[in-house]
Amino acid sequence: MFSHIKNLQFEAKPDGPDAAFARRLQEILGGKWGEMTVANQYLYQGWNCRLPGKYKDLLLDVGTEEMGHVEMIATMITRLLEHAPLSLAEAAEGNPMVGAIYGGSNPAHFIHGGGGAMPVDSVGMPWNGSYVTASGNLMADFQLNVTAEAQGRLQVSRLFNMTDDPGVKQMLRFLLARDTMHQNMWMAAIEQLKEDGLEAMPVPEAFPDSPDFTEEFSYTYLDFSPDGDAGQGRWASGPAPDGKGEFRYDHSPRAHAPEPVLPPGDPRLYGTDPGMVQGVMNKVKSKVT
Amino acid sequence: MFSHIKNLQFEAKPDGPDAAFARRLQEILGGKWGEMTVANQYLYQGWNCRLPGKYKDLLLDVGTEEMGHVEMIATMITRLLEHAPLSLAEAAEGNPMVGAIYGGSNPAHFIHGGGGAMPVDSVGMPWNGSYVTASGNLMADFQLNVTAEAQGRLQVSRLFNMTDDPGVKQMLRFLLARDTMHQNMWMAAIEQLKEDGLEAMPVPEAFPDSPDFTEEFSYTYLDFSPDGDAGQGRWASGPAPDGKGEFRYDHSPRAHAPEPVLPPGDPRLYGTDPGMVQGVMNKVKSKVT
Amino acid sequence: MFSHIKNLQFEAKPDGPDAAFARRLQEILGGKWGEMTVANQYLYQGWNCRLPGKYKDLLLDVGTEEMGHVEMIATMITRLLEHAPLSLAEAAEGNPMVGAIYGGSNPAHFIHGGGGAMPVDSVGMPWNGSYVTASGNLMADFQLNVTAEAQGRLQVSRLFNMTDDPGVKQMLRFLLARDTMHQNMWMAAIEQLKEDGLEAMPVPEAFPDSPDFTEEFSYTYLDFSPDGDAGQGRWASGPAPDGKGEFRYDHSPRAHAPEPVLPPGDPRLYGTDPGMVQGVMNKVKSKVT
Amino acid sequence: MFSHIKNLQFEAKPDGPDAAFARRLQEILGGKWGEMTVANQYLYQGWNCRLPGKYKDLLLDVGTEEMGHVEMIATMITRLLEHAPLSLAEAAEGNPMVGAIYGGSNPAHFIHGGGGAMPVDSVGMPWNGSYVTASGNLMADFQLNVTAEAQGRLQVSRLFNMTDDPGVKQMLRFLLARDTMHQNMWMAAIEQLKEDGLEAMPVPEAFPDSPDFTEEFSYTYLDFSPDGDAGQGRWASGPAPDGKGEFRYDHSPRAHAPEPVLPPGDPRLYGTDPGMVQGVMNKVKSKVT
Amino acid sequence: MFSHIKNLQFEAKPDGPDAAFARRLQEILGGKWGEMTVANQYLYQGWNCRLPGKYKDLLLDVGTEEMGHVEMIATMITRLLEHAPLSLAEAAEGNPMVGAIYGGSNPAHFIHGGGGAMPVDSVGMPWNGSYVTASGNLMADFQLNVTAEAQGRLQVSRLFNMTDDPGVKQMLRFLLARDTMHQNMWMAAIEQLKEDGLEAMPVPEAFPDSPDFTEEFSYTYLDFSPDGDAGQGRWASGPAPDGKGEFRYDHSPRAHAPEPVLPPGDPRLYGTDPGMVQGVMNKVKSKVT
Amino acid sequence: MFSHIKNLQFEAKPDGPDAAFARRLQEILGGKWGEMTVANQYLYQGWNCRLPGKYKDLLLDVGTEEMGHVEMIATMITRLLEHAPLSLAEAAEGNPMVGAIYGGSNPAHFIHGGGGAMPVDSVGMPWNGSYVTASGNLMADFQLNVTAEAQGRLQVSRLFNMTDDPGVKQMLRFLLARDTMHQNMWMAAIEQLKEDGLEAMPVPEAFPDSPDFTEEFSYTYLDFSPDGDAGQGRWASGPAPDGKGEFRYDHSPRAHAPEPVLPPGDPRLYGTDPGMVQGVMNKVKSKVT
Repeated sequence: MFSHIKNLQFEAKPDGPDAAFARRLQEILGGKWGEMTVANQYLYQGWNCRLPGKYKDLLLDVGTEEMGHVEMIATMITRLLEHAPLSLAEAAEGNPMVGAIYGGSNPAHFIHGGGGAMPVDSVGMPWNGSYVTASGNLMADFQLNVTAEAQGRLQVSRLFNMTDDPGVKQMLRFLLARDTMHQNMWMAAIEQLKEDGLEAMPVPEAFPDSPDFTEEFSYTYLDFSPDGDAGQGRWASGPAPDGKGEFRYDHSPRAHAPEPVLPPGDPRLYGTDPGMVQGVMNKVKSKVT
Repeated sequence: MFSHIKNLQFEAKPDGPDAAFARRLQEILGGKWGEMTVANQYLYQGWNCRLPGKYKDLLLDVGTEEMGHVEMIATMITRLLEHAPLSLAEAAEGNPMVGAIYGGSNPAHFIHGGGGAMPVDSVGMPWNGSYVTASGNLMADFQLNVTAEAQGRLQVSRLFNMTDDPGVKQMLRFLLARDTMHQNMWMAAIEQLKEDGLEAMPVPEAFPDSPDFTEEFSYTYLDFSPDGDAGQGRWASGPAPDGKGEFRYDHSPRAHAPEPVLPPGDPRLYGTDPGMVQGVMNKVKSKVT
Repeated sequence: MFSHIKNLQFEAKPDGPDAAFARRLQEILGGKWGEMTVANQYLYQGWNCRLPGKYKDLLLDVGTEEMGHVEMIATMITRLLEHAPLSLAEAAEGNPMVGAIYGGSNPAHFIHGGGGAMPVDSVGMPWNGSYVTASGNLMADFQLNVTAEAQGRLQVSRLFNMTDDPGVKQMLRFLLARDTMHQNMWMAAIEQLKEDGLEAMPVPEAFPDSPDFTEEFSYTYLDFSPDGDAGQGRWASGPAPDGKGEFRYDHSPRAHAPEPVLPPGDPRLYGTDPGMVQGVMNKVKSKVT
Repeated sequence: MFSHIKNLQFEAKPDGPDAAFARRLQEILGGKWGEMTVANQYLYQGWNCRLPGKYKDLLLDVGTEEMGHVEMIATMITRLLEHAPLSLAEAAEGNPMVGAIYGGSNPAHFIHGGGGAMPVDSVGMPWNGSYVTASGNLMADFQLNVTAEAQGRLQVSRLFNMTDDPGVKQMLRFLLARDTMHQNMWMAAIEQLKEDGLEAMPVPEAFPDSPDFTEEFSYTYLDFSPDGDAGQGRWASGPAPDGKGEFRYDHSPRAHAPEPVLPPGDPRLYGTDPGMVQGVMNKVKSKVT
Repeated sequence: MFSHIKNLQFEAKPDGPDAAFARRLQEILGGKWGEMTVANQYLYQGWNCRLPGKYKDLLLDVGTEEMGHVEMIATMITRLLEHAPLSLAEAAEGNPMVGAIYGGSNPAHFIHGGGGAMPVDSVGMPWNGSYVTASGNLMADFQLNVTAEAQGRLQVSRLFNMTDDPGVKQMLRFLLARDTMHQNMWMAAIEQLKEDGLEAMPVPEAFPDSPDFTEEFSYTYLDFSPDGDAGQGRWASGPAPDGKGEFRYDHSPRAHAPEPVLPPGDPRLYGTDPGMVQGVMNKVKSKVT
Repeated sequence: MFSHIKNLQFEAKPDGPDAAFARRLQEILGGKWGEMTVANQYLYQGWNCRLPGKYKDLLLDVGTEEMGHVEMIATMITRLLEHAPLSLAEAAEGNPMVGAIYGGSNPAHFIHGGGGAMPVDSVGMPWNGSYVTASGNLMADFQLNVTAEAQGRLQVSRLFNMTDDPGVKQMLRFLLARDTMHQNMWMAAIEQLKEDGLEAMPVPEAFPDSPDFTEEFSYTYLDFSPDGDAGQGRWASGPAPDGKGEFRYDHSPRAHAPEPVLPPGDPRLYGTDPGMVQGVMNKVKSKVT
């Protein structure tokens, strides 16, 4: 169960309006790697977590914090949307900056949202639930969470270079610091999972590869464009990170199965297939299995 | 530039049809973590890679292999779609397995696809480009690739338990082995990036956190649901994985900003706001023609 | 800023598993009128609300409660997903109920979600941000909130008739009671807005219709399929609800503008148009304006 | 069955081109609250209406009128798309207005649509069927229709302030007048439903709340962020609009269920759960129910 | 401007209910190649058509007819949704057909639509505007319309084999006959366009290929998987259908450009690139252009 | 199985950067008619093709070539994204061209993609699998492929007029020439299908129209907006292209079925219907607990 206080976790007040930057800031609110994604992802991972205790609690705690970040960024965007040019006439009569704001802003912010934040990304595409993964396997999901925080911190750092507004920059510094913490946190959680003996690599550890396939497939780099340098990397020789095998390099991977020949289809589906046309069928049916 | 041979990388032939399993197998073809995702993700990461040499080549090689996996799974699905019940009458007159196939299959496989594979997931939702991330930062993206292979191997292992067909299981064993290799490979690539001095944690390393924020925010676990066990994990005390800080634990995080009070909106947007309540509305009314 | 306690607002425990009902219950979690929609809609309306005080607080309070409903339903779904048949063989060998569960469940619940709730609807389509409207005009939005609670209560009442599980029914009774409160609440909020003089009908009140159009268009029912009974309703005669006009009925609406003739397009776009082809252009250009 | 005449219901001719405004005007054509939505929503509600007579006829009549509005707006947009700058060179060499049009227009209008209207919104996102609700319960749907017309009129009034073109403004005046009528009409239809005894509040009336829950949940305002003014509104005390209860106010809502502990998952899904790992299971299983 | 009569173009009444077939029938209502697509596609092509006269009229006429088909199919679906099993208990206690209906139906038909048709496809995914193309070039669009009618007739013929209901089959026969007409009609319209000298192949005719490229690229079949029979088709030798060239066959297509080496990225975007890291840059910069 | 060489099929190097054109060029990469669509469409049609030999090989060959076009365009876009203005300040301080680039570019290219191509269209909407059709009927699909190449060539020719960059224009010339070839190729393949006796018009030929319907429906033009010139076209009189009928013209199409009256709905769904008005509601109420 959630509760809310009216104060913000951190200040979200720009020194001035900038509707074009407001559109861009939507990326870390409603984009694939934005705060709505991490908030929902951690909460769903937490709600679905079948292991009571510190992992489940971690997920629910941090998901709750991210809800507060959604709130901060939404507030910032609404403030940035002040005093925007609404028409072509306003865009053209002002200084060049006004024209750039007009072209660079999201018209739905005004027509649909009335000058308020929306659950969309920097293009204006709505956030959607496919951004969230809660697989039930904590190792796979914590690895996803590491990259979610890395992609998020990367996007915030880029946005930091897209504005000169001191108030905006201060809020971004806060978000960068929290992303630093959260990257570290999920890395630590992966270490913890290993220490607790709950999962190892490759995920899922409980499913062992077939011994017949191990040598040729489980540790072999197959080079499908053999005119390059990929053989020089650590992934092509030496011990594999899972500690269970040795990398090999195959510069000329072979096909293991013949050209597929499909059986005739159901004639009630009216496809073009051997079963429907006698003349062609005779020509090809010796090859059909 | 690509070329193609008619043979398959590995055999993709079921021992018998099963349209309900065909629907489920679509998840690893056109789902968020399926082969279309990894093929496109690695290729886009490769095409966008501004660093020539082994990393770029790695991405393009493996993306090309994944295109061959797309082909194998599509072929398997088309073969599994044989002899499916088309109508309620067929579903009800057969043995219980026929009824279960009818209910458990994707009708679009027959009405739209004519008995062939489609670029959709196990629900029937089309694959889409938002599943792909190519951020330009290899560390962030290789971390994503690790989880992509882990989520993929997890899904294949689950599908392995959803069928008894020996031919299907054999293809899944092959895919599991390749996912083992690819998980190891991206982990090794992360190590290689560090060795080559190209990136470190937290991503992006080139953006340093503000010193003012480091102590309170960059390494502090803020517990937003303080009735749990999250403080017991490695993420709440001890050295952080980036080697640059020490975790701290705050069981009662405070708000750093007051309740936000927003400025009045543009009256031309007709929102409900303080500016409209008073005389502004009068002013606006006279202007409307 | 949000905080969270581990307890649930209300119990969310079924007496037994039912993966097919779990799929259906997703509608009120991640569907258009589900709890994710109302939680986000009220929060975004609150964050964007430029009028400080009771309206803004109302929106944030109730949005926070709805987050707790998201949690309850997610928990219920995860519990309902126990002991589901994974394969066709299991589906066919059990009693008929097992076969119906197999056909009626969402395979992504198992392949992607590992037996946990997902932010999707009863079809399996991801929740998305276009379900949320926060227009900045509280009257328009409170009217939307009324229907959101009505559609939501309607769906819960239908789901009530789709299960016999006592634990599920008890949670649905709780949600029905809260939807009763919330329908009443938004109706009361509409009354309050009127009392406070902040908005009236038609929305937005601050934009007055052109007097020239009032008689013919602002209060006239135009009957575009004149073979029916629509003229018998309250909307075709008598005083209009806004207290500003009288309904009229036009059983034979006329067109007010001629057939549109478009100007030739830019030849650099290679459309088929008069400007491109001399012979046709001569024939038609007298009509082109 | 539909028929069509070539004349327009109202003139849709701008005085001059403006591709940037054309993009914005798409919001009321193919946006969530645009004419495609109301046309399809009323028609689907009408086709699905199981009650013959005036309600069904009302829905089909007005849906048909809205198809004519779709036609008018599409025609207007196509005319506005004339003479747009196609390249950066054209954008930069003209006056500042040309640059603002270039940045503010939708490139797909030219590359995909060849200078014609498209079924998309002001961002360029395609209209989709999830915008339509036809629930079968007329009270719930008429309430939705009220807000649809209110949101629609709000958007048109905003667009009115985004252009100076007399021809565009004249068409918008017509649409505003019809939205006035339609808001009134759906309000009248709600009154009619009540008079005819077909539905009352809360929707659906036929489902009565459990008496055990009425006092605590059906009429009680639960304040989940207790530092605000929400208790001052009409929704927190006094008679509820449904005439069946009295509002109460709870400033400290309690949780009614303990922290949920989930049962172990199916080991064949390879989640991280107590059932899979003996050591952890022993530690936690006494808590698992 | 449109008008509507209450009668249907053709009868749409099943002999009995079948909710599983109702779900399947949605494909030709709200699927990619369904009636909503052709109705909107022809109307948008008509509204955008800059050439007054018979082509524009053809598009608007037929689009209007298709609206009547949308109505018929929606009506049929609503009737088919009668008497469906709502719960697992009902599904399991009836005959096997009831269980198959439960598994094979779309739960949103009942929870969301209350037993009525929806603007979605057979999977349940909403119809969307990207299905519509109105390019402004009639030849390109008429070719699309041919395939739209062919794909549509194909789907109807498949659905014809998925039911035994005489009433359903009769309506499908009507739709098949109209699809026959419409396929013929668009083929005739293509011939008419050629006769009128408005467009020829390749589209757009007004853009001539560069003479330098004609021989090697404009008429040459490049075989990128040279182990097959593609060279035996009419597309690899002989005169091309446009009457302007002769097909050639290249069994070993060559690359015309070197491996791309990208310039360093903007360091403010924090990508992994040569510009950011001195040591690596020295190693590679001689290759960077 | 695929392989890859590092060289490009054709040079993809602009003479200078242009982030606004890069956004526009995305249309032919990730748009509905872009290279990702044709690559996937031909490959899926090939993988699903049940007829071994030249048709299947054709599809796989050309799909493989299109993958190389995806690569070229992605490379071009990444190069065009150099030196873009990141902030409003940069946009406004440069020459007018810089402002136009700022407004006309896609911010996600920088925030999400780090200056690299993405699988999206010119609006920024992700490519999705519904763009692909592989129906199993080669005639229907080859007709789709004709229009895909025509729409594609049309879009490339429009983009040709949207840039002055010689390097970009040279790559577009190459793509135009290949689109010329591919339009011819699919037309030739349609001829080949007819010659081989595999399919004829109307598709699917194997489903004959009911003789009762032939005269009135299969060859009759029904004019639903009878105030126009559509009767003057070849589609209204004379022999039909399928060689099986003669076109007729009906200027006043009649309705063949009465107004539909629907049966009462299931009371458990709480719709507004005739069944609920009377005694049914009483019966239901007593059952609800």
